[in-house]
Amino acid sequence: MKIKKRDKLMGGLENGATHNQDSSPTTTKPTKTSLSPGSMINLDQGDPTLFEPYWRKMGDKCTVVIEGCDLMSYFSDISSICWFLQPQLGDAIKRLHRVVGNAVTEDCHIVIGTGSTQLLMAALYALSSPADRHPGYKDQAEFLRSGLYKWEGDAHTFDKDGPYIEVVTSPNNPDGAIREAVVNRGEGKLVYDLAYYWPQYTPITQPLDRDIMLFTFSKCTGHAGSRIGWALVKDKEVARKMTEYMQISSIGVSKESQIRAAKILGVLSEGCQHFRTVDSENFFEYSRSILKERWERLRNVVKNSKTFTLPKYPRDYCNFTGMYIDSNPAFAWLHSKEDIDWESRLREHKIIARSGERFGASPKYARISMFSPPEAFSLFLERFSAIIDNSNGNVVT
Amino acid sequence: MKIKKRDKLMGGLENGATHNQDSSPTTTKPTKTSLSPGSMINLDQGDPTLFEPYWRKMGDKCTVVIEGCDLMSYFSDISSICWFLQPQLGDAIKRLHRVVGNAVTEDCHIVIGTGSTQLLMAALYALSSPADRHPGYKDQAEFLRSGLYKWEGDAHTFDKDGPYIEVVTSPNNPDGAIREAVVNRGEGKLVYDLAYYWPQYTPITQPLDRDIMLFTFSKCTGHAGSRIGWALVKDKEVARKMTEYMQISSIGVSKESQIRAAKILGVLSEGCQHFRTVDSENFFEYSRSILKERWERLRNVVKNSKTFTLPKYPRDYCNFTGMYIDSNPAFAWLHSKEDIDWESRLREHKIIARSGERFGASPKYARISMFSPPEAFSLFLERFSAIIDNSNGNVVT
Repeated sequence: MKIKKRDKLMGGLENGATHNQDSSPTTTKPTKTSLSPGSMINLDQGDPTLFEPYWRKMGDKCTVVIEGCDLMSYFSDISSICWFLQPQLGDAIKRLHRVVGNAVTEDCHIVIGTGSTQLLMAALYALSSPADRHPGYKDQAEFLRSGLYKWEGDAHTFDKDGPYIEVVTSPNNPDGAIREAVVNRGEGKLVYDLAYYWPQYTPITQPLDRDIMLFTFSKCTGHAGSRIGWALVKDKEVARKMTEYMQISSIGVSKESQIRAAKILGVLSEGCQHFRTVDSENFFEYSRSILKERWERLRNVVKNSKTFTLPKYPRDYCNFTGMYIDSNPAFAWLHSKEDIDWESRLREHKIIARSGERFGASPKYARISMFSPPEAFSLFLERFSAIIDNSNGNVVT
Repeated sequence: MKIKKRDKLMGGLENGATHNQDSSPTTTKPTKTSLSPGSMINLDQGDPTLFEPYWRKMGDKCTVVIEGCDLMSYFSDISSICWFLQPQLGDAIKRLHRVVGNAVTEDCHIVIGTGSTQLLMAALYALSSPADRHPGYKDQAEFLRSGLYKWEGDAHTFDKDGPYIEVVTSPNNPDGAIREAVVNRGEGKLVYDLAYYWPQYTPITQPLDRDIMLFTFSKCTGHAGSRIGWALVKDKEVARKMTEYMQISSIGVSKESQIRAAKILGVLSEGCQHFRTVDSENFFEYSRSILKERWERLRNVVKNSKTFTLPKYPRDYCNFTGMYIDSNPAFAWLHSKEDIDWESRLREHKIIARSGERFGASPKYARISMFSPPEAFSLFLERFSAIIDNSNGNVVT
């Protein structure tokens, strides 16, 4: 079976991930929070610690207490297909999707993963392994080298016959665009990577209702350290095989992370349901306001440039906020009309970005994380303004 | 590169694991704790909940409290090769090995995994991937189908030339024997799976000092739900590549599980260092006494049999306990002189065991978990006595 990616821009990330949840540590180190004028600013990664102040504000509401004798078993719910999924996390996930309105969970099986990174591999495994194979007698070594499918690159250029898997990433990384499947043939199977389909990043225009939808705690609330992802899966056999992948590769998922995610997602849903009645701001409003403000500041800088551009996103009606809102992607996809190597140019000015080449695009593109600590983001804008003044032929003040 | 397993008995477990940490849920469900005379007793798995009472007794000593704003970053220590390893867990692991004396940690790099299941795959990946390959441009799909090595089965029958990896599992699963490498050629690389090299299972005769040693929280303390394993790795490049595997497959390991494991391993070390001065029993004494008592009861039943046997283990001096002690493996490897299908025979008596065939042995062997809840273990012995009486031609009372 062949796989293609919805967008080659998505491929070949340095950390090996192929999808939205890629924004992980790669070769470069994250920016220290205390910055000197000479400090390197690392905007290569998307470590979502900028949402931390909100959760600090929540105080004890999100605190979990785990005793030494808790959560010792491999099992969570032996009656469930995903036997290592803590039931309270499954409930919290379904409630959150109902509250936000971004995905249909009715008649879905939930499969939990160590981040949605592991779930994407589980989906590929589930969709490409023959149903009649008895997995019980495979061992891990054979499993690791399984030649079940072959990467075929960009879906736009895919013209082979036969079954295929298409990974649709929407909103897309790095360019933030809303995507749909492109190959559209009978033998095709689709995996939707919806890590950024949350109100802080993009208008929630409809509850998506696909066969396999992937989400991650990291991008939803900013809790990247917990490594919790979930898949909403329609087909029971696919859910069973994805669970099998988790069993073979890690015998389940951390129970500590699961109960903490359940608690935090519960508080998040609670806040969303009452944010119009109580005065406390809900998390999505908070995180959207931060990203919105950063995008406005960045666009204000870029608009002075003769050569540098940012993607435009259509303003759309968001069912969650009940307003027409703009997209505020987690990454800015900068483009230069000049024929320059963007990554190198930025590095000269002590800004670490990820070159378009890493996404199969031209070096005239660079991806910049919008997730950096506030101090780092401000210093980035300063330096970026200087680059623009230079390129405009102005004297740098 | 080829791999062989130290012992084919280890291979082809139904859950796909190839090593000690396999004792995970497979096709059958674990035994409910409340048992009726007609209940099926599941001794197929090794869910180590029997140690739970000890940790309950520890009360608040092992309790962790995690606030909503804690542990949000992907990173734990960017100065470390394993950048997602919480430093306090690394320290706790080194301290425990010093206290127990089962492994040398000096000049070792620690790589953490989602259970040691994931670490075995990381080791195979690290030992078989060419050093000059740039991982940054692989994506997960290519990664998953990597044909870096090929499973070759039992090391005893391996006679091919060229480089190989040998997985040495000691004490072994299912038969509990102490193992050493058998192929012993210049081009060979060894991975030691030491999940059961702890004082409750086997005498600690020496601090092992191998290139790659794997351990797991699940079998050390019984906290299987946390999915924490660790590797002690001598070679820096191997540690880097194992870390890379973790990054590609799950972008790190649950921080919640890590800080909890650090706390519990710390309390464990503390208890071991003072158990002769304070009156509280240390965990290894406690867990060893449970397993010892179960083995004595099982051997008392088996000794009446004309046809059924258990492996004999040499009593050896344990540096940790300072006594000559017996091995008390987590699994009993039953053998029948009669030509019967052990698994089926046991199932007729409502006992679920794992057939020797699953380990590449004869159906005259069966593996029985010694980890079942107390009530289940007692009921198992009752039913097993009846089987033995039958086979001896006695009337069942």
